[in-house]
Amino acid sequence: MVKPNLQPPKGFRDFYPEEMAIRNWLIKKMEEVSQRYGYQQYEGPSLEPLSLYAAKSGKELVEKQTFVLKDKGGKILALRPELTPTLARMVTNKSKELTFPLRWFSIGPRWRYEKPQKGRFREFLQWDIDLIGLNNLKADTEIIVIGVEFLKSVGLSSKEVVIKVNSRKFLEKQLKNLNIPVKKMNDLFKVIDKKDKMKDKDWQEYLKDIGLNSKQTKALLKILQEKDFTTSPDLKGLFADLQNYGIKDYVEFDPTIVRGLDYYTGIVFEACDRQKEFRSILGGGRYDDLLEIIGRQEELSGVGFATGDAVILELLEKLKKIPQNLANNAQVLVTLFDESLFKESLNICQRLQKAGLKTELYLQADKLDKQLKYADKKNIPLVVILGPDEIKKKEVTVKNLLTRQQKTVSLDKMEQLGNLL
Amino acid sequence: MVKPNLQPPKGFRDFYPEEMAIRNWLIKKMEEVSQRYGYQQYEGPSLEPLSLYAAKSGKELVEKQTFVLKDKGGKILALRPELTPTLARMVTNKSKELTFPLRWFSIGPRWRYEKPQKGRFREFLQWDIDLIGLNNLKADTEIIVIGVEFLKSVGLSSKEVVIKVNSRKFLEKQLKNLNIPVKKMNDLFKVIDKKDKMKDKDWQEYLKDIGLNSKQTKALLKILQEKDFTTSPDLKGLFADLQNYGIKDYVEFDPTIVRGLDYYTGIVFEACDRQKEFRSILGGGRYDDLLEIIGRQEELSGVGFATGDAVILELLEKLKKIPQNLANNAQVLVTLFDESLFKESLNICQRLQKAGLKTELYLQADKLDKQLKYADKKNIPLVVILGPDEIKKKEVTVKNLLTRQQKTVSLDKMEQLGNLL
Repeated sequence: MVKPNLQPPKGFRDFYPEEMAIRNWLIKKMEEVSQRYGYQQYEGPSLEPLSLYAAKSGKELVEKQTFVLKDKGGKILALRPELTPTLARMVTNKSKELTFPLRWFSIGPRWRYEKPQKGRFREFLQWDIDLIGLNNLKADTEIIVIGVEFLKSVGLSSKEVVIKVNSRKFLEKQLKNLNIPVKKMNDLFKVIDKKDKMKDKDWQEYLKDIGLNSKQTKALLKILQEKDFTTSPDLKGLFADLQNYGIKDYVEFDPTIVRGLDYYTGIVFEACDRQKEFRSILGGGRYDDLLEIIGRQEELSGVGFATGDAVILELLEKLKKIPQNLANNAQVLVTLFDESLFKESLNICQRLQKAGLKTELYLQADKLDKQLKYADKKNIPLVVILGPDEIKKKEVTVKNLLTRQQKTVSLDKMEQLGNLL
Repeated sequence: MVKPNLQPPKGFRDFYPEEMAIRNWLIKKMEEVSQRYGYQQYEGPSLEPLSLYAAKSGKELVEKQTFVLKDKGGKILALRPELTPTLARMVTNKSKELTFPLRWFSIGPRWRYEKPQKGRFREFLQWDIDLIGLNNLKADTEIIVIGVEFLKSVGLSSKEVVIKVNSRKFLEKQLKNLNIPVKKMNDLFKVIDKKDKMKDKDWQEYLKDIGLNSKQTKALLKILQEKDFTTSPDLKGLFADLQNYGIKDYVEFDPTIVRGLDYYTGIVFEACDRQKEFRSILGGGRYDDLLEIIGRQEELSGVGFATGDAVILELLEKLKKIPQNLANNAQVLVTLFDESLFKESLNICQRLQKAGLKTELYLQADKLDKQLKYADKKNIPLVVILGPDEIKKKEVTVKNLLTRQQKTVSLDKMEQLGNLL
């Protein structure tokens, strides 16, 4: 038998308890912020027909970055690279029963067949949050506010991160003034989205390829450097409301933000670290035709964003903002003197568990030293020690491994042991 | 464009907020019980090389029930049908750094290409919990106790469910006495595992096929009906300890329990509903050679169980034990009188959110009736109403949609609004 590789597949990750505790901490923050604003959690299947992604997810995502498999009936299924098409399908399926606007969020795995690199894995956790059925800039504002509140909740200040906001409509209007035809708009958005990632010369070559002349290119460059957004009523109103929410320091106008996905139609935004060291942390925007994603002509407008677990954790690690001691280990270890005292140790363990303390029972009568060492290595702070003498006196010895102090606690006070933590 | 099917793929599920709330309630129970005993959460990748499952997961699972895909490098990956091989790989990979015994659990999706039916989906949530590195019946006991405590925590009584326990070693010893060779043992275990699902005649035919004569078959039938386990010191000790834990009513000896997976070597068990209406709720046992799963000869013994979300939810639904009103909607809706009062409504909303209340802000100035109807449909219990009059008097009107009562609350008492819930 060939010995298997002990590593996870390329681009996939193992989460040992320490890493899992960090991941759970992050998930908790996503949940808390979502629920604070009344958003409800949903989930879809991990696999969908590949065709669901074909219409709007963008050619690159569907053709190159999707894990695909054929089921035994010959159907081609894709491991979901994003959740929005599933959301569109689910909303359509129950559109008559649901009460709009929907405030929905989801946290789960997504898969993309990309080259693994910093902040990018083939399997990652993603938080999607959407406000659907309300075509009103106040909805866009709320979604951006939630993004900011999330960044705040993990300890990121407005000096460290920013949400850059633009309006596709505003940009589109200006591009039309340059006589750029509407049908080229999506291509042009894609080129603009890549500006930061390309050399200036290559990028301008790219513009030439899609048919811009040098005058248009020059004018485009000017548009993309403009800091004034007050000629756009949408952006003006949005930024006024962002100020009402008290988060002005976290947001700024950036005319180069367009986002890569085809279905955005209005406000678009992404969060980045101020140092520009990392890829974008979260991104989203307004989509006017959610149902067009799945081939429906009905109108349903929404706004939302998505964020993965990888970039934000790298940024937080760099800034040393991930809390210490997150590992979800036991709070108390109850030792075992010998087999004859098992019932007594068990009884104490059960009482502590009932009092809400995470408690491990040491299951074999090893030397006390070995049991203490085990608690120490596992970062279990309190150790309850009991032998025949203690039992006779109806008490136990409690050792605090953090302070190295120990004290005697009466058996009838076991439920208060948590006070020593 | 072909209009896509609005249903999830066959055997997959959509979780709308109501269903998601139930699923989250169940996950919470799994987490709480695991953590009560000091178990730590971990997670592995969703995809592993197919070869990881080849050794020990059983032929049927690997060849017929696994979703398989070829990555762009030609490697064959499987959507994990179970987690134990991943656990074995992860433990081996860090065996030098980890402190044994490990108390680990994981909750996440698994995939099996099975015929969808009652209690069986192609994608399901599974909770795995294992105690690794302690070859001691007290560990087996603890794992069974955790199974019972989980069943209790979701409200199932010992009159509704039972954990049936057996020992493969005990059974093996008795089978050896019938002159059944060791190398036939695994095949025979599989046949015994299927006894409940087959007609008696077909089953006895099956026994003949693997080479049992009629005398052996008769003796086997007697073994499988035996209620006395006291000739097995392991079972005797185990049941004595289960009594010490105070859960005797939830457990019983059943000589027909063997479990389907090849890697079990000692105690095996499964939980079923007493009415025998559903498939088994959870199953597990002792595996002496965890690392053999991934082709290692080192010794590492563990014990654990796994349980999915499907069967237990069906049972709980039948018994009407799923709590009502789990949906995680907002607790308060703050209405909007008109655009000019947006700041005032926002301010109240933010104060309520800060006070820990899940609060939605109504984002457009619809008629009050429409706003109240929205809260009603969404099961939001409290509605805060404020117009110019209220603001002048520095108060708001709070309507409780459950009791249909309303009262006036002073603006400076907003933080105590939770008391009305």
